[in-house]
Amino acid sequence: MFFASDNTGPALPEVMQAINEANQGYVLGYGNDDLTREVTQSIRDIFQAPDALVYLVSTGTSANALALSCLAQPYQTVFCAPMAHIQEDECGAPEFYSGAKLSLVGSDDKIAANELDAEIQKCLERGFQGVKPGALSISQVTEFGQVYTLDEIGTLTEVAKAHNLPVHLDGARFANAMVALGCTPAEMSWKAGIDAVSFGGTKNGCLGVEAVILFDPDKAVEFEARRKRGGHLQSKHRYLAAQMKAYLANDLWLNTAQNANENAAYLLAQLAKIGVKFDYPPEANVLFCQLPKQIHAKLQDAGASYYTYDESHETITARLVCDWSIPRPSIEQFIEICRSA
Amino acid sequence: MFFASDNTGPALPEVMQAINEANQGYVLGYGNDDLTREVTQSIRDIFQAPDALVYLVSTGTSANALALSCLAQPYQTVFCAPMAHIQEDECGAPEFYSGAKLSLVGSDDKIAANELDAEIQKCLERGFQGVKPGALSISQVTEFGQVYTLDEIGTLTEVAKAHNLPVHLDGARFANAMVALGCTPAEMSWKAGIDAVSFGGTKNGCLGVEAVILFDPDKAVEFEARRKRGGHLQSKHRYLAAQMKAYLANDLWLNTAQNANENAAYLLAQLAKIGVKFDYPPEANVLFCQLPKQIHAKLQDAGASYYTYDESHETITARLVCDWSIPRPSIEQFIEICRSA
Amino acid sequence: MFFASDNTGPALPEVMQAINEANQGYVLGYGNDDLTREVTQSIRDIFQAPDALVYLVSTGTSANALALSCLAQPYQTVFCAPMAHIQEDECGAPEFYSGAKLSLVGSDDKIAANELDAEIQKCLERGFQGVKPGALSISQVTEFGQVYTLDEIGTLTEVAKAHNLPVHLDGARFANAMVALGCTPAEMSWKAGIDAVSFGGTKNGCLGVEAVILFDPDKAVEFEARRKRGGHLQSKHRYLAAQMKAYLANDLWLNTAQNANENAAYLLAQLAKIGVKFDYPPEANVLFCQLPKQIHAKLQDAGASYYTYDESHETITARLVCDWSIPRPSIEQFIEICRSA
Amino acid sequence: MFFASDNTGPALPEVMQAINEANQGYVLGYGNDDLTREVTQSIRDIFQAPDALVYLVSTGTSANALALSCLAQPYQTVFCAPMAHIQEDECGAPEFYSGAKLSLVGSDDKIAANELDAEIQKCLERGFQGVKPGALSISQVTEFGQVYTLDEIGTLTEVAKAHNLPVHLDGARFANAMVALGCTPAEMSWKAGIDAVSFGGTKNGCLGVEAVILFDPDKAVEFEARRKRGGHLQSKHRYLAAQMKAYLANDLWLNTAQNANENAAYLLAQLAKIGVKFDYPPEANVLFCQLPKQIHAKLQDAGASYYTYDESHETITARLVCDWSIPRPSIEQFIEICRSA
Repeated sequence: MFFASDNTGPALPEVMQAINEANQGYVLGYGNDDLTREVTQSIRDIFQAPDALVYLVSTGTSANALALSCLAQPYQTVFCAPMAHIQEDECGAPEFYSGAKLSLVGSDDKIAANELDAEIQKCLERGFQGVKPGALSISQVTEFGQVYTLDEIGTLTEVAKAHNLPVHLDGARFANAMVALGCTPAEMSWKAGIDAVSFGGTKNGCLGVEAVILFDPDKAVEFEARRKRGGHLQSKHRYLAAQMKAYLANDLWLNTAQNANENAAYLLAQLAKIGVKFDYPPEANVLFCQLPKQIHAKLQDAGASYYTYDESHETITARLVCDWSIPRPSIEQFIEICRSA
Repeated sequence: MFFASDNTGPALPEVMQAINEANQGYVLGYGNDDLTREVTQSIRDIFQAPDALVYLVSTGTSANALALSCLAQPYQTVFCAPMAHIQEDECGAPEFYSGAKLSLVGSDDKIAANELDAEIQKCLERGFQGVKPGALSISQVTEFGQVYTLDEIGTLTEVAKAHNLPVHLDGARFANAMVALGCTPAEMSWKAGIDAVSFGGTKNGCLGVEAVILFDPDKAVEFEARRKRGGHLQSKHRYLAAQMKAYLANDLWLNTAQNANENAAYLLAQLAKIGVKFDYPPEANVLFCQLPKQIHAKLQDAGASYYTYDESHETITARLVCDWSIPRPSIEQFIEICRSA
Repeated sequence: MFFASDNTGPALPEVMQAINEANQGYVLGYGNDDLTREVTQSIRDIFQAPDALVYLVSTGTSANALALSCLAQPYQTVFCAPMAHIQEDECGAPEFYSGAKLSLVGSDDKIAANELDAEIQKCLERGFQGVKPGALSISQVTEFGQVYTLDEIGTLTEVAKAHNLPVHLDGARFANAMVALGCTPAEMSWKAGIDAVSFGGTKNGCLGVEAVILFDPDKAVEFEARRKRGGHLQSKHRYLAAQMKAYLANDLWLNTAQNANENAAYLLAQLAKIGVKFDYPPEANVLFCQLPKQIHAKLQDAGASYYTYDESHETITARLVCDWSIPRPSIEQFIEICRSA
Repeated sequence: MFFASDNTGPALPEVMQAINEANQGYVLGYGNDDLTREVTQSIRDIFQAPDALVYLVSTGTSANALALSCLAQPYQTVFCAPMAHIQEDECGAPEFYSGAKLSLVGSDDKIAANELDAEIQKCLERGFQGVKPGALSISQVTEFGQVYTLDEIGTLTEVAKAHNLPVHLDGARFANAMVALGCTPAEMSWKAGIDAVSFGGTKNGCLGVEAVILFDPDKAVEFEARRKRGGHLQSKHRYLAAQMKAYLANDLWLNTAQNANENAAYLLAQLAKIGVKFDYPPEANVLFCQLPKQIHAKLQDAGASYYTYDESHETITARLVCDWSIPRPSIEQFIEICRSA
């Protein structure tokens, strides 16, 4: 019953297989190999963006920080939600790489367009004394498991564009959001006004690979130099490329995300039936719910694994993450324990 | 005939096998897993350093830059050779992570103790106007394939210690140097006055893993925070640990380096016989030699792969790197072409 | 009627005189002169801190940023109020110099001890993913003109010390706060748990000089190097020292602040009589009040100078700052216009 | 006999007078005042550059570091002479502000065009592993008192432009170089291919003011934000402006530099007569000469003040700097002691 995170399960067999297959012969390092060229082209095709820059790195934090360092200047600020991964969970990496500050918009998991506009205005009003508006970064799926609609994204990027701000999308769970919306990668990115995407592979079945996609092809020199300067250019690059290639082949990434989302929906539906309350409308594969203490105790006894927050109330806030690999019996067992408690 | 680099060949089968085996079940991320604990302990045992801090990252540049950021302050300078990897090949990563400058010592591949002393004195004489002495970093194996003797290391670290400077060892080819010297890891590190080691796995048969070893246990919080801030904490950490564990098991790392060194020595001996000159006494698995142009042309025609420098003279400077995987027939073929040309 | 800021008026005649007097003969640069030694000792005496480090810089932002860079590490965070000068008005200087983040405590102008404790707890709970607690910074006088009592400071520094956090006090208006409290410099700094003070001279009658006072003498090398690295070591240092010396001589700084505070109190009392509401209990020389629109219009017509915020309500938020130099007739004129409108 | 530096003497009476005159009435801070507007326009006029950006700061190090931060990216390198002030005497400020590295060109005080070209080529050959060429910075007057001819500057900037590199001129002694060459400010800057100038006032008679002149007007937002972020925006900006205005009025700056250069030439001529050897052709107001030890001893006994370097040889390397204020009798006394020893 492993619901702690989508980084605790094994990698997809197809991804593993691809790494094994890549492990033969001699190829040049640093991305100067055919696998890398193929996967770069695949992502351009999938995003219908023939000129996009595509780079692979091995962590989500580096993907976000490097992407933002190409969008925001050191004397600027990046607008994001107070709970954004870049604010809470990256130990200052975005600021380290970009030199910019982060400005928190609103008080919730999702940013509303009017809140963004107000925060930009407030920033502009500080004048020369304060940092300048630099970029917007949104998470899709959000930290609390919500998914912005295409309209919501479009409205936010419109506000940003009105102030000439580029927009970054932290897509550590890009696939889960996409299948939730039933849209194309292009629709959820550049067609909606997104300039840079952190396109996650790790949480959805890879060992450790994320693509940074920049829709402005003029950033090539800068990104490549910043990646190297950050120590994020893998010398044996084929192993990153092999993962991503297998991940994207035959819609594996989408089927996997679909499966994770369905598992989460099923878990939600069953828990809701027995009265468990959910903090946010669950839309992808991350659920935040209020577990009564006795249920929590039973689950712990049975070895269920998940993160909890704020145990000071009658119910305990629990985060349940379904990755692609959770077996249905595990889910049934979890539900059964809740039901019986 | 792939002599371009020790990052162009495949990974060791044992390392690959270990990754495959690690790919089952659920384990917590970010290094909070048994494999990581085991490999950390292994490295402490191998280095006879029960209190050492051991951290895994996926690139050599990040290992160097993170290690140095724990040794040198932003207003200090790191002394290194003019050809050091940290100076020439890391796009400013050491400066980015530490904030420190690099000061180049001497004009050669190896640093001499008197040159180091002179450069430190010069730095001190600048007074408050200049950066302060911060740390020493040496490469073992050096960029040009040389190996510092234990005495040489000891003499350099003595000079550094006389000025309270900690010493970093860039051991991207640590194993190759060690087998060349026939010493223990402890002798080539803390016993010789080294405070931090970048312990390479990637160039000697792993997919991508390096250990940073800090002999000062007080640096734990700082290193861990800096690693995360740099985006270098892998979430599915087991795959780094599995590589390193297999690499260290049963002396695989040493046998592999031994093999690479022997291949290089054999290649050298045969080329020397036919009159090829070598720029540096070849001591590990990296050779710099002067290839006559007609030999170079024949080798190119035959598809031999290696880097060349400075083609303006009668002979061409060629770097020949033997990794663990070069098959003996490849070497023989290379020699045969040289001989016949 | 200049109430815009305490940086719009002329410098004190005594300060000007001192600069003129300092302008003769040859003295070594960079602080290696008698005036600097004298003023350093004066500040140590005034603060009853014989071992304190004392450094002069020419701007408040550099004083704050340099002080914080000696207290907080790049992977840490500095707790401060949301309206703190270091957060709002320094264009990211504290982050630039220290590498640290800022974490906003509470939602008000003053930080409450329980809010600080909660924010530190929240930070600690993020674990390795988030930045680490690094330091606390409070403003005295605050941005909205309030003054922390000695008890309030003591309670805040106790919370900070319980987590081993050093505490910085942004004393751009140190003198105004001190005379408001009627305490000694020591009582408002190290005796209350403060580790570093930005001790302002500029806003209280100097041309441009602030002292950074560090009560930990071990920071000397670091501060001096960081100041030079920031470009804040004045070569003709005597002119900074002369200002500060005259400022401190014969209680000039205290008399000047007393006068500014009294002017503000008088202005407040008269405006209150005619019904003007004040946003915060006015305690020093900065007042935030709600000016009815017709009063505001009359004042503007008469050429009164002050900053306004948020003009969307019935009344306009106005900041009225009294520096040492505002002539009483100016104040009377201002009051008269308000009264008649 | 104060020949230690051009920062040890008093400020020009005209400059002092201007500060005194500026010290009345109320004006807005941060450069939003008439004096600042006037001096900005004066510099544009003097440089025949109606669109140039002009900013005042109080130190030469901040002028250099801020200017370079607008020219070079964090993943680039700034080419400069090994003895450049930005390399030796600014404690890493240029790297701190820009994030870029410094690459040392040649081994001398002046950069030769072919050396620059070779160093750029070498940098380009490192490829993605190394930092990218970013900018060129030259000092005029150089550290050893030499002056580049207009042709020399033009040739260097041509090499730089061929690689799209902007060029910075560290003009801490701009006036001394200009009068030595007998050219206009425009000829020694933008007409010769210079993109940014640190235009010194401090060493030539001001208390502490330098202008940064950027000939690319698109840098306004960036420079202003970086200056504030560096803590270098003076709040009572009128006192910087007043200095610079007086300095530029009635050719004061040129007459003063002329006087300093003439003093140096006279000193040189007299010392040469008695056999003192000079290390570099003396062209402005800074002389490096070889003082026999007995002469040095006599000078020290008589209280002469100057810096010495490398006392290990028979003669001592001495730096003699003539600022505007050295009285002729002091110079005569110095010469007399040398002559008699």
